[in-house]
Amino acid sequence: MERIDKIKSIIGQKGIDLAIIHNPLEIFYFTGNMVQGMLFIPLEEDPVLFIRRPKERPIKKTLTYQYIDRLGEILSYPLSWKNIKQIGVEKDIMTLSMLERIKKILPHGKFEDISLEIRSLRMIKDKEEINKIQKAGKIIDSLFAKAKDLINEGITERGLALELEYISKQMGNIGIYRMRNKDNETSFAHILSGANTLVSSYLDAPTGGMGISSAFPQGPSHRKFKKGEPIGIDIMINYDGYIADATRTFVIGEIPDKLKLLNQKLMEIFSSLKENLIPGNTAEEVALKALETAKKLGVDDIFMGIGRDRVKFIGHGVGLEVDEFPFIMKGFKIPLRENVVVAVEPKLMDPELGMVGIENTFLITEKGPESLIEFEEDLIRI
Amino acid sequence: MERIDKIKSIIGQKGIDLAIIHNPLEIFYFTGNMVQGMLFIPLEEDPVLFIRRPKERPIKKTLTYQYIDRLGEILSYPLSWKNIKQIGVEKDIMTLSMLERIKKILPHGKFEDISLEIRSLRMIKDKEEINKIQKAGKIIDSLFAKAKDLINEGITERGLALELEYISKQMGNIGIYRMRNKDNETSFAHILSGANTLVSSYLDAPTGGMGISSAFPQGPSHRKFKKGEPIGIDIMINYDGYIADATRTFVIGEIPDKLKLLNQKLMEIFSSLKENLIPGNTAEEVALKALETAKKLGVDDIFMGIGRDRVKFIGHGVGLEVDEFPFIMKGFKIPLRENVVVAVEPKLMDPELGMVGIENTFLITEKGPESLIEFEEDLIRI
Repeated sequence: MERIDKIKSIIGQKGIDLAIIHNPLEIFYFTGNMVQGMLFIPLEEDPVLFIRRPKERPIKKTLTYQYIDRLGEILSYPLSWKNIKQIGVEKDIMTLSMLERIKKILPHGKFEDISLEIRSLRMIKDKEEINKIQKAGKIIDSLFAKAKDLINEGITERGLALELEYISKQMGNIGIYRMRNKDNETSFAHILSGANTLVSSYLDAPTGGMGISSAFPQGPSHRKFKKGEPIGIDIMINYDGYIADATRTFVIGEIPDKLKLLNQKLMEIFSSLKENLIPGNTAEEVALKALETAKKLGVDDIFMGIGRDRVKFIGHGVGLEVDEFPFIMKGFKIPLRENVVVAVEPKLMDPELGMVGIENTFLITEKGPESLIEFEEDLIRI
Repeated sequence: MERIDKIKSIIGQKGIDLAIIHNPLEIFYFTGNMVQGMLFIPLEEDPVLFIRRPKERPIKKTLTYQYIDRLGEILSYPLSWKNIKQIGVEKDIMTLSMLERIKKILPHGKFEDISLEIRSLRMIKDKEEINKIQKAGKIIDSLFAKAKDLINEGITERGLALELEYISKQMGNIGIYRMRNKDNETSFAHILSGANTLVSSYLDAPTGGMGISSAFPQGPSHRKFKKGEPIGIDIMINYDGYIADATRTFVIGEIPDKLKLLNQKLMEIFSSLKENLIPGNTAEEVALKALETAKKLGVDDIFMGIGRDRVKFIGHGVGLEVDEFPFIMKGFKIPLRENVVVAVEPKLMDPELGMVGIENTFLITEKGPESLIEFEEDLIRI
């Protein structure tokens, strides 16, 4: 109930009488139960979980709950309905249809957005959450080692991805890669090589990739790896609900000097990022310093994507979803704190050489960032 | 442009001046381009696709397009903005935040739901779409045959699922299982055995399954297959954007007589469904006749799920998503037509024996339903 107490305190400050959580993943976050229904968190009373489904499967009895078939049945619950005027909902994930249904039972409600507050709360991870992200990170370490064994000139981007995903699932990857923004979607890995490392897609990410279908034009393709070109491996693992995210760049055979030089610049930017991932700094400050370093090195125009498709963030929070707070970017002024977990992913896209990229998932501690990925950070020669 | 012309004709009848399509998958449906942005379909002018990303990747030039960074830039496009009053949006998938952003550029708009119209349009598949679903069906046929080889007492639900998914991806399954309802989510296969065939979940489906994580409590678990109990294999395949869906029930060793008897009843219900899947019948009529048959056979209380978690539908349209129109259920009064593709999945849940289930994806033709799955329909003895 600690998480619910925190939300109560936040909505109290905003003058909100009732928070409504409708998304199964967030109902899970607050109650431990992945269910369809609605979690009502009234400011002045105990929270109650209205469950539409499942009804025949045991639930964790962490709070009062009631089974419903229709939303209207909520009104029969003995809440002080008359006191409810200001209602907090998450406008970035609630649909217009759902609000219309809620308005039918709460016609006098005024609806305010509490998405920022809830995302900010979820940004700070507890021990159990950190433990799961650590375990996801360990799986990624094993996969990078495995990739080092498997990469050769005969294998395709997708061939490698299928092997690694299969292995990852045997190691406990539950294989769902959730995003909060439902107009975005992603998959297990962006394994991209040569020219494909420079292909952008509809996904808000520095890399895109060709994919194998115009209906899912991102991620690995049937392109075979070739000597001397960068092979970027960007992997997500979901361990028991929690995601870790990391990237390494591999090269078959001799690493071209120009690529080494580009990678040195990347590592300098990565160092700047790591130095600044400390409690108290805002996410914006971290980004601005990295952008400054990129500019000083003369690579700001090839940083974080290709041309007009460069993304504005250099890092993103991870947890139940892969697009959590904080975003390491200009304009994101929330200060970092202990137990924030963030994936930081500087990437340089040279129009001729292709991409060099690195990404670790970091736990922010009072001593600075602790990497949850231990695999070597340099360019990896096969 | 045929699809866009159809939407124009529909919104014209509803008195709508402009339809806005915001979802990348539906922008893909209408334009062939999977992009972030907005597709504007004005009644009186040519459609225009505003693309936020990607900008550096070639697009299919099926219509006029303009690159934008911010939504406000749309206003600089020479449309007859003054004539736009009634605006059609899809309320079941548009978020409150997105509507607020749109209202900033179209403050005088009145917003109406056109979700039913668009879903009804998408319900009728063209040749190319049918061809892709057929190919997805062929992959499922191979997987059932493979399952027959692989099932034994030593393997777990999840072990089999990982093998089949890996094989399916080698055969072209693009591995994304999209749902329109973003508060639902699913995965490659519900491979469930014995008592697990009776476990419901938050997903609106007759089966649920334990899964391996409370953060994704559905689908296969670490349970090993045992002799004489039902093993339900419900698989989805996405071939080039299009989904086919099918279920078969397997048994290791002697099939218990009671299970055979239950399966006979299931097959009778399945026959009723197939007989009625003809153009002109409403989806509701098909459902009611199947429910009548189930009642006559004395299995209506164990039909389509367990207890209070029985689902209301017996079938669902498939295509770009797995929860498309039509739903074969009471209340869904839209008539079936030629070139509708629907997965029909009668399932009987006996509290002691477990589930027997069957599912095929059918193309509706003037001659009746054509199954896109050819694998044997009976209980399969291993």
